[in-house]
Amino acid sequence: MLTGLMMDYQLTIDRVLEHGNRLYPHKKIKTKLPDGTLHEYCFHDLYGRVKRLCNVLERLGVEPGDRVGTFAWNNFQHVELYFGAPGAGAVVHTLNIRLFPDQLAYIINHAEDKVIFVDATLLPLIETVADKIGGVEHFVLFNGPPGGVETNLPGQIHDYEQLMTAANDEYSWRVEGENQAMGLCYTSGTTGHPKGSLYSHRSMYLHTVGSCQAAAIGLTENDVVMPVVPQFHAMAWGLPYAAINVGAGLALPGPHMQPAALAELIETERVTVAAGVPTIWNGLYHELKENRRDISCIRALVVGGSAMPRSLIEAYEKELDVNVVHAWGMTEMSPLGTVSKLLSHHQELPQAQKWDVKARQGYPISGVDMRIVNEEGNELPWDGTTMGELQVRGPWVVREYYKLDEGEDSFTADGWFRTGDVVTITEDGFMTITDRTKDLVKSGGEWISSVELENLLMGHTQVLEAAVIAVPDDRWQERPLAVIVPTDASDPPSADQLQGFLEPQVARWWLPEGYVFIDEIPKTGTGKFDKKVLRERYPG
Amino acid sequence: MLTGLMMDYQLTIDRVLEHGNRLYPHKKIKTKLPDGTLHEYCFHDLYGRVKRLCNVLERLGVEPGDRVGTFAWNNFQHVELYFGAPGAGAVVHTLNIRLFPDQLAYIINHAEDKVIFVDATLLPLIETVADKIGGVEHFVLFNGPPGGVETNLPGQIHDYEQLMTAANDEYSWRVEGENQAMGLCYTSGTTGHPKGSLYSHRSMYLHTVGSCQAAAIGLTENDVVMPVVPQFHAMAWGLPYAAINVGAGLALPGPHMQPAALAELIETERVTVAAGVPTIWNGLYHELKENRRDISCIRALVVGGSAMPRSLIEAYEKELDVNVVHAWGMTEMSPLGTVSKLLSHHQELPQAQKWDVKARQGYPISGVDMRIVNEEGNELPWDGTTMGELQVRGPWVVREYYKLDEGEDSFTADGWFRTGDVVTITEDGFMTITDRTKDLVKSGGEWISSVELENLLMGHTQVLEAAVIAVPDDRWQERPLAVIVPTDASDPPSADQLQGFLEPQVARWWLPEGYVFIDEIPKTGTGKFDKKVLRERYPG
Repeated sequence: MLTGLMMDYQLTIDRVLEHGNRLYPHKKIKTKLPDGTLHEYCFHDLYGRVKRLCNVLERLGVEPGDRVGTFAWNNFQHVELYFGAPGAGAVVHTLNIRLFPDQLAYIINHAEDKVIFVDATLLPLIETVADKIGGVEHFVLFNGPPGGVETNLPGQIHDYEQLMTAANDEYSWRVEGENQAMGLCYTSGTTGHPKGSLYSHRSMYLHTVGSCQAAAIGLTENDVVMPVVPQFHAMAWGLPYAAINVGAGLALPGPHMQPAALAELIETERVTVAAGVPTIWNGLYHELKENRRDISCIRALVVGGSAMPRSLIEAYEKELDVNVVHAWGMTEMSPLGTVSKLLSHHQELPQAQKWDVKARQGYPISGVDMRIVNEEGNELPWDGTTMGELQVRGPWVVREYYKLDEGEDSFTADGWFRTGDVVTITEDGFMTITDRTKDLVKSGGEWISSVELENLLMGHTQVLEAAVIAVPDDRWQERPLAVIVPTDASDPPSADQLQGFLEPQVARWWLPEGYVFIDEIPKTGTGKFDKKVLRERYPG
Repeated sequence: MLTGLMMDYQLTIDRVLEHGNRLYPHKKIKTKLPDGTLHEYCFHDLYGRVKRLCNVLERLGVEPGDRVGTFAWNNFQHVELYFGAPGAGAVVHTLNIRLFPDQLAYIINHAEDKVIFVDATLLPLIETVADKIGGVEHFVLFNGPPGGVETNLPGQIHDYEQLMTAANDEYSWRVEGENQAMGLCYTSGTTGHPKGSLYSHRSMYLHTVGSCQAAAIGLTENDVVMPVVPQFHAMAWGLPYAAINVGAGLALPGPHMQPAALAELIETERVTVAAGVPTIWNGLYHELKENRRDISCIRALVVGGSAMPRSLIEAYEKELDVNVVHAWGMTEMSPLGTVSKLLSHHQELPQAQKWDVKARQGYPISGVDMRIVNEEGNELPWDGTTMGELQVRGPWVVREYYKLDEGEDSFTADGWFRTGDVVTITEDGFMTITDRTKDLVKSGGEWISSVELENLLMGHTQVLEAAVIAVPDDRWQERPLAVIVPTDASDPPSADQLQGFLEPQVARWWLPEGYVFIDEIPKTGTGKFDKKVLRERYPG
């Protein structure tokens, strides 16, 4: 093979930090601390502290390839760990603070975390598994009280700032090459054990540059980014890396995730790009309707994790003049897959149709290949109506799970990742998630999308939340059951009212077989509807 | 080493075409044909024809790694070759149609081109070397007259459309991996032989994604791109690849490079991004001042190749309301290195100072590392005044020249490419080229920038072109001599007038020692001032 004569420049995440520090040393990273005050420092401070952190890790005995856990909110210390662990050749392993104790313990032990960095405000949560994670050698606490803490955690307990102060801020990156592992995130499915995605320097570097494309998230130095999506959730969608890469400011909410606090941070820090799940933006919307603030600084309210109801997109754009950008991804995809921005042929559409487009999950960004297949694995057309399982491929998609053979059915023989999402794709490449493969209602040989029914039901003013599950049916195999949380428990809608609301909007055979009204829908550790629990509760 | 578990997805240029065809099959590529009519087809047509072209290449005996020459204007056939040769595992080698015959023959023979695709409108130019390029086995002509042509070219002569019609449009890419060579461009220095940069699939893929970053060129599907920069000049700055990558439309001027024709193409095709050298935009400016057209569609007039005078940037923005984006790169860098867009702290500056910023070559985009060094190789500060040689590094920078040992002094021992440019870099990362190392005037141990003097002189209304060269001086070692082309030959400025014009703008010792007035400044094959000729003509 005739090879090109270009530099063998390794795509490693320390390059991102070097670039950010060299070009934008004075750009700011601001964090809302637990006490509500604002911590503020610049990229150059970050750079020096990351190097200190590398020395700290070496002092703690962390070797290349070792897993370094984090158990923290979104804050500057967590950003330091995003660069520090990989810079020392180790793997930053973000632990989800919302997991059930059994899952948390399983993940820590499966990953064999040698050290865990703990946000002291979350100490009680991790202490629930103290007696199950004896393999962890060190716990390093930050945001703790000055006098130190009492804890039942095993191993050695350290104070982050004490270790940092004692460490040198000169360090040569211990990165061996672009294929070296640098990050680890587990997803907790509703079946089986949590599964770990082990990112490489190459995959995260390419994800960073890919997401900075103008047709993707497209951050620039003119942006101030507020990742509300937790740093323990798919690397905060890669936003900390993307921000450092291009010199965008960072505004980190710390533990202050309440709508009023977020609104204040947006307004005072002139946030231009904010990213979170629909629940967060739903809360912010209601907050802003009550306590109006100027959030016109936002150029993109990025929403992912699950589908944002079209009604909420419309409300944001019409009532608050905020541009909503739907995105979709998965932990297994680092996570960015699609973005929903208007294309040239959408520009002249009436506003209502633009919102229809924006309610879709969007087109795959450059670097992500998509296809949809039926149950036999045959490829299906992109016609906007044919539902099929979404499969993806690309340089930032996992090829196997970490130390797990049972995840093999997630990968096709020809090298694609099976997302488990059932979707349609329009002719112009806009993907819409209609369901998870396991949540589909299979009625009379046809598929009913539980997600679509839920979105429609949540458009009813008297419905706060709606979950649709399949219940067994002798004649049709399965039929949909709607589980409803009323907006006002003292004034719930009736089943007839909801049926009448749905009738003009869906095919007759899609109409739920029944309605159940409850106070709250059970959620998984990542805040999604836990349909496994619902199916157990309502076996039909 | 613990390796990540991400897909081994090879970064190859066929991925870009696959993505463009899958997502944007209906997007248009328009070409102004030699007869002035507009040829128009879509990405899906391009896709099918590229596959045909791969079969054509195999039929002509092209093997993986073979060099396939092109000798053509910017047109759809040339875009087909950009993807077709690499798709067949070969190397697309773009030949500069403006080279002197000896250089052209040298390059064809040095590259060992097996086949050359020739724009028939350029046949007389390549025929000048017909007797020196006997190693070329096939010439394939397009845009030729229907009845075929008479030519003295050696080897077999074919008609492009006849070969394409006979070929199949099904083909499996013959790409072996991301490090495979895919493109070759030579630069003709003023000393020594032309030197070839051999691009790999990986480097061109990464350059494509890198340039699509919002902080770089940032194309999206909403753009229509007009590369006026020739496709034989550093891959038209990678714009054809970037456009296909994100679904931007392409408007290709073919041989119609006159200002009026370009203005018409911009207006009728609603071009949003146009890219070319300052000479082109200078011509377009004067055309638009005489024959006003609506070119408000342009969101970025990208200028590179050499520095755009600040006066012309100001004129475009103030008089025509067109946003100018300075960029800088080199053939050895695929070519994009820097882009000059305003940062957040520039936004509140008075307009005049914004133009000062935009007159700089700009900041390095993510993916490009820069440093400046003195003659001893020591790194110099980024303070906006210290001049040093610019060195670069990155995944799309060459590590050595193709089959050439003598280019070794272009690379440092620690793996950086020496650009040969003398520059300053501001604290906030904006690079300004002050000179080429070989064109600097070294006066009394200090450096005088010939480029800066030229730019100032060209700001004088009576000066059309100005070139400054060093002449030997007994006392000061070297002194500057200004070679002037008056705007109006019948009314030239005097030397005293020019000296008086410069005096308030530069240090006293920078003032030229003398002025020479001529009709035209000799140019190199790429249209730059040929100072070697001037130095021979005015030995001092």
